[in-house]
Amino acid sequence: MASVAVLGASGYAGAIAAMLVHRHPFFELAHVTARSEAGARLEDLHPRTRVPLELESWDPRAHARVDAALVCWPHRVAAPAVAALRERGARVVDLSADFRLRDRGVYEDWYGAHGAPELFGEGVYGLTELNRDRIAAADLVANPGCYPTATLLALAPLARAGLIGDVVIDAKSGVSGAGREPTAATHFVSAHGNVTPYKVERHRHTPEIEQELAGLGAPVAVTFTPHLVPLSQGELVSCYVTPAREYTEDEVIGLYDGAYADEPFVELRLGAPGVAEVRETNYCRLSVHCDARTRRVLAFASIDNLWKGAASQAVQNLNAMFGRDEREGLA
Amino acid sequence: MASVAVLGASGYAGAIAAMLVHRHPFFELAHVTARSEAGARLEDLHPRTRVPLELESWDPRAHARVDAALVCWPHRVAAPAVAALRERGARVVDLSADFRLRDRGVYEDWYGAHGAPELFGEGVYGLTELNRDRIAAADLVANPGCYPTATLLALAPLARAGLIGDVVIDAKSGVSGAGREPTAATHFVSAHGNVTPYKVERHRHTPEIEQELAGLGAPVAVTFTPHLVPLSQGELVSCYVTPAREYTEDEVIGLYDGAYADEPFVELRLGAPGVAEVRETNYCRLSVHCDARTRRVLAFASIDNLWKGAASQAVQNLNAMFGRDEREGLA
Amino acid sequence: MASVAVLGASGYAGAIAAMLVHRHPFFELAHVTARSEAGARLEDLHPRTRVPLELESWDPRAHARVDAALVCWPHRVAAPAVAALRERGARVVDLSADFRLRDRGVYEDWYGAHGAPELFGEGVYGLTELNRDRIAAADLVANPGCYPTATLLALAPLARAGLIGDVVIDAKSGVSGAGREPTAATHFVSAHGNVTPYKVERHRHTPEIEQELAGLGAPVAVTFTPHLVPLSQGELVSCYVTPAREYTEDEVIGLYDGAYADEPFVELRLGAPGVAEVRETNYCRLSVHCDARTRRVLAFASIDNLWKGAASQAVQNLNAMFGRDEREGLA
Amino acid sequence: MASVAVLGASGYAGAIAAMLVHRHPFFELAHVTARSEAGARLEDLHPRTRVPLELESWDPRAHARVDAALVCWPHRVAAPAVAALRERGARVVDLSADFRLRDRGVYEDWYGAHGAPELFGEGVYGLTELNRDRIAAADLVANPGCYPTATLLALAPLARAGLIGDVVIDAKSGVSGAGREPTAATHFVSAHGNVTPYKVERHRHTPEIEQELAGLGAPVAVTFTPHLVPLSQGELVSCYVTPAREYTEDEVIGLYDGAYADEPFVELRLGAPGVAEVRETNYCRLSVHCDARTRRVLAFASIDNLWKGAASQAVQNLNAMFGRDEREGLA
Repeated sequence: MASVAVLGASGYAGAIAAMLVHRHPFFELAHVTARSEAGARLEDLHPRTRVPLELESWDPRAHARVDAALVCWPHRVAAPAVAALRERGARVVDLSADFRLRDRGVYEDWYGAHGAPELFGEGVYGLTELNRDRIAAADLVANPGCYPTATLLALAPLARAGLIGDVVIDAKSGVSGAGREPTAATHFVSAHGNVTPYKVERHRHTPEIEQELAGLGAPVAVTFTPHLVPLSQGELVSCYVTPAREYTEDEVIGLYDGAYADEPFVELRLGAPGVAEVRETNYCRLSVHCDARTRRVLAFASIDNLWKGAASQAVQNLNAMFGRDEREGLA
Repeated sequence: MASVAVLGASGYAGAIAAMLVHRHPFFELAHVTARSEAGARLEDLHPRTRVPLELESWDPRAHARVDAALVCWPHRVAAPAVAALRERGARVVDLSADFRLRDRGVYEDWYGAHGAPELFGEGVYGLTELNRDRIAAADLVANPGCYPTATLLALAPLARAGLIGDVVIDAKSGVSGAGREPTAATHFVSAHGNVTPYKVERHRHTPEIEQELAGLGAPVAVTFTPHLVPLSQGELVSCYVTPAREYTEDEVIGLYDGAYADEPFVELRLGAPGVAEVRETNYCRLSVHCDARTRRVLAFASIDNLWKGAASQAVQNLNAMFGRDEREGLA
Repeated sequence: MASVAVLGASGYAGAIAAMLVHRHPFFELAHVTARSEAGARLEDLHPRTRVPLELESWDPRAHARVDAALVCWPHRVAAPAVAALRERGARVVDLSADFRLRDRGVYEDWYGAHGAPELFGEGVYGLTELNRDRIAAADLVANPGCYPTATLLALAPLARAGLIGDVVIDAKSGVSGAGREPTAATHFVSAHGNVTPYKVERHRHTPEIEQELAGLGAPVAVTFTPHLVPLSQGELVSCYVTPAREYTEDEVIGLYDGAYADEPFVELRLGAPGVAEVRETNYCRLSVHCDARTRRVLAFASIDNLWKGAASQAVQNLNAMFGRDEREGLA
Repeated sequence: MASVAVLGASGYAGAIAAMLVHRHPFFELAHVTARSEAGARLEDLHPRTRVPLELESWDPRAHARVDAALVCWPHRVAAPAVAALRERGARVVDLSADFRLRDRGVYEDWYGAHGAPELFGEGVYGLTELNRDRIAAADLVANPGCYPTATLLALAPLARAGLIGDVVIDAKSGVSGAGREPTAATHFVSAHGNVTPYKVERHRHTPEIEQELAGLGAPVAVTFTPHLVPLSQGELVSCYVTPAREYTEDEVIGLYDGAYADEPFVELRLGAPGVAEVRETNYCRLSVHCDARTRRVLAFASIDNLWKGAASQAVQNLNAMFGRDEREGLA
């Protein structure tokens, strides 16, 4: 057994992370923290979790004495908590953006000053399927953003094969992606019966996608546009790749089979990957299509933005960090 | 032409009221006011209205010089504005609860101190179909609540015939009924995929329904329970009447035909009245059923809570007050 | 280990039943059958199940050699299959209506001729919480309808205490309750943005509710009206009880606490039980309210119509029949 | 007054077309036809239309004696009816694909044999904003597909200016786009909570988009991928243009202002065009963005697929053909 604290358990992803740890056969949920809602029981705020623990105000002296922590706080606020946890030796999966980027200037351009500069760049990028050996050896894992998770799984086989010349990524996400804070945009009446692009040209997951694509062999400037669709949870990314070189359909299919045939949480399918099929699971569902007319390669991937896009991937990473079967607590 | 101001045009009902006045062949939209959003154009806040007017801060000296006003402010805040408008001679339809109740004690129990006590009880209850002669002669009309509108239309024929011994009213409403303010309950993720009863035993429309049923001949204590359903707009009331006396099905059907056959905005149907059928209209759709097994009479009514339950009924009343065809601007 | 066949696994409830058996630590999924879709893999028809078995045409000689079966066929078609299974000694949970009613005339009035008259009335009514001792000893369990499940859990404490004089039951159900067959009513465009009563006065769950209420001590003719709401899964019943005698609020709360405090799948709450809270679980969430004004008692219960209202309750019953912990495979 | 028949008024677009004609101050709805549902009243099938006419079986001798017809039948079935109408001199707006394409081989590749070859290519392409002079002089107008309508309005200013080197079009459409026939894909439970790409690489609107783009000056092979989103009505197209040449943001904005500033039904906005804003209207709402990082131009357009994408654009065209104000009956 290993003790785990979940910081920021009152948010959507944090609550699910706490639930998954609470039900996990190896991990023990030691603390759940919240800033403004300390004192409430998690299952009263988030009934579906059925976690009867009380949310506590974060107190590093009391709560950092754990074997591991999942940090579900917003960027910039997360970094100092991560630092405090690392100082006491806890292994950390950080779900914020604070340890995902490796270029300090890029981080500052998109997010501002970093909250724990001494640790900047220390995180291992936690897209489990692409990075599991380094994750297994890591003490600090930067859990990917939801859009990068789906996008990189969709594009990795092409990127590694030098096939990406250019790419347009059109993403559709449920409203939980906008967070739990009630706003005009998250009001039911605004989002129901509606579809809208948002943060056109300026979504913060753009540099994260570009950094990781470059690392896989595709140093391209991507066009990434998210859209809000009337779902609670779930996300689909549609990737339109202009190839950098000639290819055959057999080659492309072989690349995906080779990459994912043995992956427990990637489901490669011929047909279109609906988001309902992965709701409340750690699965990513994928399809790839070679368009003979335009020579473009189209790759679609669906995930649950709060699960594989956040909380359950964090647990998958925690499993890897502690030498457990990646599927433990997630099947 | 008559000039009309709409106070509180930034809310859901107010915006629709402004739109209906703006498109009306006889009325002219002179002012739209808002408290916190003054300076914005109405069509930017509520694109569907396509009303290019700028929202102004309410200034009685400037804005009360109109022929009529629709007051779409919350209860207690509405009353003083109504008083200011009446003082300058403007005819008023007030959409708040401030002038609906006739018993001062009941008002204070449910709403607190009244904001214009000298006018208390001066409003004519504006359920057009039940009260049109008095509305035509009125200077101050209290537009009914959305639930009372549907409920009273569903029950009036039975009430007048002395048929109501007891009644259970189970209502289902879209989320716009909870107002435009973003809250935990109106967050898309809370309301989507969910159905919940709310304000059990204590919804403020209860005394309003009882007052008007009593006036129609049915002095009963009702059980009224609203439920939130995942719709933007629309409301269905299901009324379960324990009869006060013997009746035949023919009698009941005759009562409804007699009451509504010539009503332009009441649609009596054999089948169930879905709320989609009345969305963004001033119609109320009704069906009545006599259950031979239990002797209960079941009456169902659907309306759009923001239209017939608020804004369009206000315009229907305004038409009546100015001697216009009730359908003008609403067809 | 015990081998289990799921008949009718291509329907919504059957697919979930198959999934739950497939994941169950004690039961082994031996066969899944379908009528028109034999040959397909279950996970292709119902991706969320992730059950890689092929659907077979029902063949009693091959498929009845199991320790147990869950029969998810429609009424009248189910009975002969149940008979064939019982003949070979398989224990059966039947999810159809064929073995729920105990009065043959009532069955025939509502459903027509019975498909296995020699077994009529042999089923133990499988509402686990109310009947678990008899279920544990049974070879044939009649799994309750979804509406009776929620309604009887909501009303049992009052019924047993002689408190129910009369009751109105207003139910709201997601569209999966109408089955998987595409019809005008289940078309997305019909159901989305809509709420409608259906089968007013004539839903087949009415006699089932009355039979079981009578057995609990409340021989009343109920008014039961279901409504279709724009949800995939989930169901809320709102029960309005006119009491048969005086009572105190403390007494009522004591009745519910006494009945359910130790139930693993009944969650008694002060606030309103939203259906989202029980989605894809075996939980029933309940609240009870004593209305001092009208003396009525209001009880609300939410379940997932496909889980506790069908598939997961069937597995809960199977657990009981095989002497397993009721929660096994359902937590 | 001009008499108008609507053929195929039992479908979604046909019913709305009939409603718009019925309410139109100049046109008179003479006949509504349906194939399998003749004998029903239109308002019983489609309550929102409130058109009390009876659906008739199409009889060219009786029904072609009208001044004009809107043909809302599927492709291949539409053409012979159009021929019969034209023979008797009726002006026709055909909502099928039968007269949109000008290359006979392309038509046959995508749709099969044409049903009235003598008329092939005789239709004027009815995207009103782009073609209104030719429409005004036409007797046969081919109403555009819903996706081409939104896409061409989004791209026309760039196409005419020679700015389109390549384009990816990612479209999101409500379920009504799949038609009124109940299918597995249009079942509420399939579509709710889901987003899926469909007809990847092979949607029939592709050649229509390419033909018209070429006509505007952009002879490109487009990548067009529609997605089903959980809406009843509404459609958003997101167009990602790789420019064919250098440009400035001022130039692009000038192109759109020049094209649309005076258009009554095109709304150019800075922010994102949500589909809720155009629901049940003839508006197309547009925004354009120049991405300095990638040099791509992004154009977004939202319409109601059944209105501007079908029925209301047909009436807009009919207005033009009869010399009426295009806005008549559509405001």
